[in-house]
Amino acid sequence: MVSRKEVAERAGVSVATVSYVLNGKPGVSEQTRQKVHAVMSELGYKPSYAARALKIKKTNHFAVLVHYLGDPFEAGILSHIEHQARRHGYFVSFQTYHPEDEERFLQEVSGRIDGVILLGQSLMPETLNGLRSAGIPVLSIMEPMQQSEWITTVDMDWEAGMTQLIRHLAEQGHRRIGFMATGIPRHPHEQRRQAFRSAMLAEGLPCEEEDVLSGGGRLEEAKSAMKHYLASEAARTCTAWIAANDLMAVGMLSACREAGLKVPGDLSIAGSENILMSEQTEPRITVLDYPRKHIAHIAVDMLVAIIENKQPRGCKMESRLLIRGSSMHE
Amino acid sequence: MVSRKEVAERAGVSVATVSYVLNGKPGVSEQTRQKVHAVMSELGYKPSYAARALKIKKTNHFAVLVHYLGDPFEAGILSHIEHQARRHGYFVSFQTYHPEDEERFLQEVSGRIDGVILLGQSLMPETLNGLRSAGIPVLSIMEPMQQSEWITTVDMDWEAGMTQLIRHLAEQGHRRIGFMATGIPRHPHEQRRQAFRSAMLAEGLPCEEEDVLSGGGRLEEAKSAMKHYLASEAARTCTAWIAANDLMAVGMLSACREAGLKVPGDLSIAGSENILMSEQTEPRITVLDYPRKHIAHIAVDMLVAIIENKQPRGCKMESRLLIRGSSMHE
Repeated sequence: MVSRKEVAERAGVSVATVSYVLNGKPGVSEQTRQKVHAVMSELGYKPSYAARALKIKKTNHFAVLVHYLGDPFEAGILSHIEHQARRHGYFVSFQTYHPEDEERFLQEVSGRIDGVILLGQSLMPETLNGLRSAGIPVLSIMEPMQQSEWITTVDMDWEAGMTQLIRHLAEQGHRRIGFMATGIPRHPHEQRRQAFRSAMLAEGLPCEEEDVLSGGGRLEEAKSAMKHYLASEAARTCTAWIAANDLMAVGMLSACREAGLKVPGDLSIAGSENILMSEQTEPRITVLDYPRKHIAHIAVDMLVAIIENKQPRGCKMESRLLIRGSSMHE
Repeated sequence: MVSRKEVAERAGVSVATVSYVLNGKPGVSEQTRQKVHAVMSELGYKPSYAARALKIKKTNHFAVLVHYLGDPFEAGILSHIEHQARRHGYFVSFQTYHPEDEERFLQEVSGRIDGVILLGQSLMPETLNGLRSAGIPVLSIMEPMQQSEWITTVDMDWEAGMTQLIRHLAEQGHRRIGFMATGIPRHPHEQRRQAFRSAMLAEGLPCEEEDVLSGGGRLEEAKSAMKHYLASEAARTCTAWIAANDLMAVGMLSACREAGLKVPGDLSIAGSENILMSEQTEPRITVLDYPRKHIAHIAVDMLVAIIENKQPRGCKMESRLLIRGSSMHE
């Protein structure tokens, strides 16, 4: 394990300066602070939470930073986080986080919380450094991009999931498969688009830029994007579509029906989340199913372990493929 | 406007004692504290938030206490609360509230927040008194039961809504209309069940205890309750069903389809929330539509007004009836 001394040596500063940076004390120049953080990242230094626990009163409270409160997939994780946290005797509050909140957020949480769970969120580097300096551990679920080695992640194996989906569609005779992404930068679904691309290439299937549509993440937006596409000349190249989330899959299905297309038959459609809605459409939608309750429980257990000075390793959860009527006759 | 002096006189204590109670200071017996609160309720006394603002630093933060994080109808209000609060420069955090949290919750929020919004939540009387003593205003949306005159409410006019729905169904020839309630005591949907009952009686239609089913509020639970009912001898008395929420309406529809019943035709079904899912089923479900964005905005605007020492009046929002395929051929 890397020590403060090693960090100090590599950064060319005193051990006291490293401690100052870690504890967020004033009297250290911004340049030095950044240098120390850079070295900590480089060496994979993890602050000792036991030391922190002695200094700072435990509050048994953690904050969950949500990406979008109205998202049904995320909501399915949130309620389980809350439940599991209560079992451990922790109190949870939920909030969104916008880059402009940085200072405010640090002020709000400092001394008040024992840990942070990010759900589909990424933080400004300044916020991350602030939390790190305050010794507040961060755990990330559905990380939009890898931010720091310091953050423990509980993620979903999107590449394995997309491979399952693509193989199923290929078995049904599809070769040209389209993908509906959100089209929003730094969005947690970006990971899914990348996984789709890698899986298509690995399966030796064509992956053209024009086969990716932007659906904005919402049902109605996805529906109009699909309607627009179906009315265009490009339409009918792809015989199957995968959506980065289920709401967009439902929107695509709705657009197909209004355009008089048979699903499956003319087009196959699949989602990737298994929200309640995707099982209530006609036909029901083929989806990936991730164990959301389990993910929530593992995330909470891990964060509590970190707070209690254990160092769990990150993990990736596998999905199951649920084949339904939108990709194969039931 | 009632003054502290009047409260003191009626309660038979000094004005200083009333102030002590209002500011949550020690040195007042529990008996006196309760007496003062009872008199404040009786006289409709509202503490002056201007006075409070001078004493306590404003934090520009309010807490929203949610009933259930996974509920799609509530989620549709939450994201708009967040958005509108940000417009006013307020920071919002969301949490659930359980009766056992009382002491903890007061400790958490004391001095940290400017106000509380309850969404489908009710508070323990002790918590309410604590907030009142601390001069923290409370606003309630979808109040499960009227708790205190002191709480400003932004509510939905369920009675008018249920009347609209029942009249529509009566026009289609239905007389015996069933209701699926959650069956959970102190649940925010309880209001809807009462409104259904009043509206049925006002329309001169029969309202039998056996025509009310408990569906637990969730899709799967509602589906099995309906399946069980359809297999029973009691089935087929009601020709139409209204569900207290849309998830249960979707569950009922699913049970009818599995039982080979035609909707509409054999049975009509209606929901009461207009969540996204109720428009994606086959047939789409007739629902009440409440302006959730507007409700969220009004609630936030009102809470901010109260914090700024204005005294807005509570209000009730009307619904629109959206007639769809589950109650009339489209």
